[in-house]
Amino acid sequence: MLCYGAHMAVTFHIITLFPDACAPYLNASIIGRAQESKKIKIKYYDPKDFSRDKWGRVDRRPYGGGPGMVLEPEAMLRAVQKAVGKKKVEIYFFDRSGVQFTNETARALVKKKVKDMVFICGHYEGVDARVQKILKAKKISVGPYTLTGGELPALIVIDAIARQVPGVLGRFDSIEEERVSSSEVYTRPEVFVWKGKKHRVPKVLLSGNHAEIEKWKQLTKEVL
Amino acid sequence: MLCYGAHMAVTFHIITLFPDACAPYLNASIIGRAQESKKIKIKYYDPKDFSRDKWGRVDRRPYGGGPGMVLEPEAMLRAVQKAVGKKKVEIYFFDRSGVQFTNETARALVKKKVKDMVFICGHYEGVDARVQKILKAKKISVGPYTLTGGELPALIVIDAIARQVPGVLGRFDSIEEERVSSSEVYTRPEVFVWKGKKHRVPKVLLSGNHAEIEKWKQLTKEVL
Repeated sequence: MLCYGAHMAVTFHIITLFPDACAPYLNASIIGRAQESKKIKIKYYDPKDFSRDKWGRVDRRPYGGGPGMVLEPEAMLRAVQKAVGKKKVEIYFFDRSGVQFTNETARALVKKKVKDMVFICGHYEGVDARVQKILKAKKISVGPYTLTGGELPALIVIDAIARQVPGVLGRFDSIEEERVSSSEVYTRPEVFVWKGKKHRVPKVLLSGNHAEIEKWKQLTKEVL
Repeated sequence: MLCYGAHMAVTFHIITLFPDACAPYLNASIIGRAQESKKIKIKYYDPKDFSRDKWGRVDRRPYGGGPGMVLEPEAMLRAVQKAVGKKKVEIYFFDRSGVQFTNETARALVKKKVKDMVFICGHYEGVDARVQKILKAKKISVGPYTLTGGELPALIVIDAIARQVPGVLGRFDSIEEERVSSSEVYTRPEVFVWKGKKHRVPKVLLSGNHAEIEKWKQLTKEVL
């Protein structure tokens, strides 16, 4: 078991035009409790607050034509600079062409005891490509689909990493990944009647025979 | 171009214990505007409101032991019943063992003019397995990682589908998927100075030569 002291908590820095669309998810349920107990920290940086434009505008038409708006480099970089300070950090971008994010990625980051991670959320057509090049940010993908912005990928990655941080999943949650993984779970009632039909819990789960139960769980287990 | 009249808008029904964690994302930006203009509708059903327990409790200990809590079948099914009514709907579950969701899935659903989609968000250890069996719900996965609940997968799928609904992406957004796809976009300034170094926009984008620009875009294009 890894041990994070209070001062070792991992901090997730999110660069986003839409902090208010992200925070309610991260403040709820298990991830919310992890913040309250200071197991993890989450900070938001809105590029609009770092724009030199008097209206806080950060989206501009793309060079070379085409539809959509592109996020300008300076405001993005100043927001990242604020997040990074003098710390050693890992900076991530979300992109369909990036490396697929998996549970393994999450576990590896927690094992490495990375203390600060910065996630740059593109929106509209994306962020001026010079930002990624200047920061040498890593491109990651959460899956083979196009989204309206990097906000959901950031939430996905933070959720998946945070639940691997020791102490985030509580007594009644699954501490070890392996134990989450029977893809069939059952609870009361033992015989559930729905539209006149009886639906029973598999007998083995009521048997009290731990060896048999374990065997059944392995059989119905997801591959993680 | 497909045509959805106002009465043809697709409705996404989300069964979740955490509606307040989902709504702010879906009410922001492009998806928020799509709701305002009635191109899509989003409805929430909290199983706690459908529990027969006087405290609205819906999580119970699993049969067969092990950590975590399982969502009971009745409250979940009553919430789904409220969402479905007498409509013909597609019901989805999120599960690592499900079929991978892709842009193709999103496009196919929009082409089929599916009017109602129900997404059941598990949480904690998951939903009693009888729910999926009774509903014959389809299992889908958004990627190879474990999350604290089905809420983020639901938001991912709704975001990816909604942006394929005609009229959701506006004049300044990319109407056609193919046009989103240069993975390098640039905007002002033409010469960007950061920490004393000059970073230039690729010359071809400033050339005004549409054929050359198109060729460059194809070269830097993501595979969708």
